Amino acid sequence: MRESEPVVVLGIDPGTAVTGYGVVRKDGRNALTLIECGVIRTKPADALPRRLSDIHDGVVELIRRHKPTVLSIEDIFYARNVRTTVVLGHARGVILLAAAQAGMEIHEYPPAEIKKAVAGTGAATKLQVQFMVTRLLRLKSSPQPADAADGVAAALTWALTPDLPKIEPIRRLAMIDDRRQN
Amino acid sequence: MRESEPVVVLGIDPGTAVTGYGVVRKDGRNALTLIECGVIRTKPADALPRRLSDIHDGVVELIRRHKPTVLSIEDIFYARNVRTTVVLGHARGVILLAAAQAGMEIHEYPPAEIKKAVAGTGAATKLQVQFMVTRLLRLKSSPQPADAADGVAAALTWALTPDLPKIEPIRRLAMIDDRRQN
Repeated sequence: MRESEPVVVLGIDPGTAVTGYGVVRKDGRNALTLIECGVIRTKPADALPRRLSDIHDGVVELIRRHKPTVLSIEDIFYARNVRTTVVLGHARGVILLAAAQAGMEIHEYPPAEIKKAVAGTGAATKLQVQFMVTRLLRLKSSPQPADAADGVAAALTWALTPDLPKIEPIRRLAMIDDRRQN
Repeated sequence: MRESEPVVVLGIDPGTAVTGYGVVRKDGRNALTLIECGVIRTKPADALPRRLSDIHDGVVELIRRHKPTVLSIEDIFYARNVRTTVVLGHARGVILLAAAQAGMEIHEYPPAEIKKAVAGTGAATKLQVQFMVTRLLRLKSSPQPADAADGVAAALTWALTPDLPKIEPIRRLAMIDDRRQN
């Protein structure tokens, strides 16, 4: 299916303050087109539950608008500051929830893998990633705001990565299994 | 309001595999009544997004059924194993989301504070907590399964803790503020 039919992938770089996203279409001949990119911003003064609600609403709205079938999201199991990482886990939780509720296929990539897929090296700088995202999608300028480029990079990582058996068992597959059992 | 009108509080001990919960009513004369307790169990074979979806569905269903106005939830900012704690953060995220979506007041307590409120000491054992939960609610036997007792203990912690200014600015309060500004 990935070789022939167009696939819309939603890429997300999660954050409690700013969540970057990019929606990319991959068509039959592997041509990549940027459909939309941007950020979901939450208010620093709001408590975490409210911010999680805003992030979830934002992702649900993106899914409603573009009907992506794949979520490509940055993984976060590195911890400089444990508390920050755990809070980020909350944000990732509501994003994965929105994708699961929509029956999307979900792929997770460590930051270095995203940089490598897009810019050729896991040690690429933010500017190198922005440059390559701009080039790969034949854009006139780099995605704005800058955080959006990270969401687009996540989407491109799935689009550029060979289809290895990395697919997690997700809701839709589970539902198919249920139907088989009945 | 807390002194006079009955309040229904949902207590939750979050977990990706087993989430314990207890629904407790606190009436005008501070009498405490257990309405329901139990666990939300997810399948170990399922991927995280599906498990998050099951946890969210479970909490939404509890809120729909009992209409609690307060969520009292165990905090998790201690890290023995960082990865485990971050994954647990995902589960907490979808629980906080469900409460925020329902406009509930949200209170978070560290594990030691829950043990102290219920059993008098932050170093109380699981059995001591179960004993005190059973006694405080005048139950004939300890809540089953055992994980449910931790959810009930979280609910009791809010019910037994003096009403200090710990209330987080939540969705409902934010909406009132918005109305004031208009």
